[in-house]
Amino acid sequence: MTTTIDLAAMGEMAKKASKETARATTEQKNNALQTLADNILKAKSEILKANEEDIFQAKASGMDEAMLDRLSLGGRLEGIVEDTRKLIDLPDPVGKTIENRTLENGLKLTKRRTPIGVLGVIYESRPNVTIDVSALTIKTGNCAILRGGSETLNSNLALVKVIHQSLEDVHLPKNAIQFINNTDRSLVTKLLHLHEYVDLIIPRGGAGLHQFCRENSKIPVITGGIGICHLFVDETADLPRTLEVIYNAKTQRPTVCNALDTVLLHESIADSFLPKIIDRLGASNVSFRLDPKAFKLLEEHSPESKALVDPAEEKDWNTEWLSLVLGIKVVGSLDEAISHIQDHSSGHSDGILTENDQNAKKFVDEIDSSSVYVNASTRFTDGSQFGLGAEVAISTQKLHARGPMGLEELTTYKWVIEGDYHTRK
Amino acid sequence: MTTTIDLAAMGEMAKKASKETARATTEQKNNALQTLADNILKAKSEILKANEEDIFQAKASGMDEAMLDRLSLGGRLEGIVEDTRKLIDLPDPVGKTIENRTLENGLKLTKRRTPIGVLGVIYESRPNVTIDVSALTIKTGNCAILRGGSETLNSNLALVKVIHQSLEDVHLPKNAIQFINNTDRSLVTKLLHLHEYVDLIIPRGGAGLHQFCRENSKIPVITGGIGICHLFVDETADLPRTLEVIYNAKTQRPTVCNALDTVLLHESIADSFLPKIIDRLGASNVSFRLDPKAFKLLEEHSPESKALVDPAEEKDWNTEWLSLVLGIKVVGSLDEAISHIQDHSSGHSDGILTENDQNAKKFVDEIDSSSVYVNASTRFTDGSQFGLGAEVAISTQKLHARGPMGLEELTTYKWVIEGDYHTRK
Repeated sequence: MTTTIDLAAMGEMAKKASKETARATTEQKNNALQTLADNILKAKSEILKANEEDIFQAKASGMDEAMLDRLSLGGRLEGIVEDTRKLIDLPDPVGKTIENRTLENGLKLTKRRTPIGVLGVIYESRPNVTIDVSALTIKTGNCAILRGGSETLNSNLALVKVIHQSLEDVHLPKNAIQFINNTDRSLVTKLLHLHEYVDLIIPRGGAGLHQFCRENSKIPVITGGIGICHLFVDETADLPRTLEVIYNAKTQRPTVCNALDTVLLHESIADSFLPKIIDRLGASNVSFRLDPKAFKLLEEHSPESKALVDPAEEKDWNTEWLSLVLGIKVVGSLDEAISHIQDHSSGHSDGILTENDQNAKKFVDEIDSSSVYVNASTRFTDGSQFGLGAEVAISTQKLHARGPMGLEELTTYKWVIEGDYHTRK
Repeated sequence: MTTTIDLAAMGEMAKKASKETARATTEQKNNALQTLADNILKAKSEILKANEEDIFQAKASGMDEAMLDRLSLGGRLEGIVEDTRKLIDLPDPVGKTIENRTLENGLKLTKRRTPIGVLGVIYESRPNVTIDVSALTIKTGNCAILRGGSETLNSNLALVKVIHQSLEDVHLPKNAIQFINNTDRSLVTKLLHLHEYVDLIIPRGGAGLHQFCRENSKIPVITGGIGICHLFVDETADLPRTLEVIYNAKTQRPTVCNALDTVLLHESIADSFLPKIIDRLGASNVSFRLDPKAFKLLEEHSPESKALVDPAEEKDWNTEWLSLVLGIKVVGSLDEAISHIQDHSSGHSDGILTENDQNAKKFVDEIDSSSVYVNASTRFTDGSQFGLGAEVAISTQKLHARGPMGLEELTTYKWVIEGDYHTRK
């Protein structure tokens, strides 16, 4: 299915709509979310029918089960609706005063939150992103141009129809959310060059998509979502509880970016603790990549576990597993652990397990990741877990937003300066 | 003068140094600034000699007076030193807690300011930028790779020598500030592709440089510095005081980005006020570009002023004059003024002059510029005027920072999460 797309015209319409949405009241925006939630449920059978078409085509093209699962909206619409409703209760960041000061000369300065303007969101197989992102966009007074994956086109078109209906129902501009109804890949590049109209690009997908956006965009991009996450087990850690944290971080949801990838074990606890990790996680189908020291240790202390382990290759330390694989390395010191993490972390989520406050402080000071943990699972890096209420992406770059991006991170600010016909000396 | 440059090696050294500078104490960093200030004065004759070489070569190549003036450090080193010393008293943003919360599950979250890491700063003819940017970089625990203009190479090398000496004097890594000692333009592109090591690109220069960076960078860029600035004179404005604000905004320093470019006059006051603007500013050598209505008005009311005015062409409304030229347009309403500004502003600084609070509010709500003024000169958009104490750039884009960027804007944050062996449910 192809449709001729005039992206510049879409950009211009989005820019125009953004002037209107920027001035929408909190009540109007919440009303839009409420209507959207209601309308999704009303259109449920239509949406699921479109989704089934996508699934049928995906199956025919031989898509694997994991991908098919990401594609499916079956049994998930109620959750999506609930998430949309939750946004209603969150505070509207737009218009909020961030800072307020009167200068010596009497000028009154107010730093005030405003919408960013027009977002370009490029995503892959999950059609729920269409609603998630649209709802966040509406709540923050922004506009968005969405570009979904080709494998979810039917689902997305059905969802976008509901979004447009909802915007019209509450008299907000339909062009606040536009969808690129054409799966020609060259349109992604064109979107990335639309800096005249688009203020921010948010990719939602794998490392390849993030890299493509970073390398080709003339618009600021929030890169992230790629987590090579570490936990370091210090010699003073409470080991039985540490085991549960490692188990949780690796197995609770292994396919996501905040799942654990590498465990670093202090050598003084490695010989007793390593076999316990292998036993506990191995029983849940985790397999392991061990550095030479760990490999040797295991051979000595728990030769029967050998079936589950492979020697790690160098590239394994730079791999986001997204599956039930765990790298394990024995280190001689906290410094060695920090240095390994500095070299291999993607800057997403890294933690230390320790009872030593000084070591915890050193780790927190020296590890420069979006989320640095002391005695907790990396799985908490998430907008809703952090109490931000919602999340549009997890940023692992350092500009504008870092870590989970909620509503505030979809805003910028302007300075308002009020004077009495002040002139500069 | 060319030197072989291994930019990747410079990036790697900067990244390494940034781990050290990120942990430097406020005292260490202030000590470095104090030493830098002292060392600049000690090396004054050496610096000025190098600067004279640049000026000599620039004169020989036929550089105009305005450019020569920007190039010259003569009589300016004391000011540069004073600015460096001023940074010492400003609060160190690094390590500051931005937000603090304990979640229901007991996890303690702290959002803590950290340095950005490695800055790539690309600038043109002003050698004072070398010291300004280095001082700001040091104070914020960042590192920088500097790329100055070819016409200031000697001055920059002399200044960088002092910077390196100062860093060594206080035992901070010399590689915290590196300078690309080669004026081959292809190195700019290479710097823009160094995303593995550089976290942020800050261009300091004209529109061409900003555009080049935005279009070629794989690293986030702060664009800005281009100001097409407007003042709208509403029908209720106090006209005598308004005249002084317009005079100040246009003439106080016409070569900078926050100088006034276009005045919009409400038609109900235009016939009496337009000739006053022409008289007052014309006496200071300002010339004018008038829209048809204004042109006609002037012909009727003040034909003797005609020598100073030209009819405006459409492109004039999109021109940053940077000189004693002022565009003037008569508009029929506040809405028409807002619409003109929305179409032509660069998003830098725009203002309204009015005694009507509702009109002021509407203007402030609808004009989406970094700095929106009510009854004040646009000339105040400046880090030091805003009380930020210092300024590395003025951003007109919407990500990360908007308007004058001071010390805080050279930082990012990380989330620190402290738990009691928490696992996610």
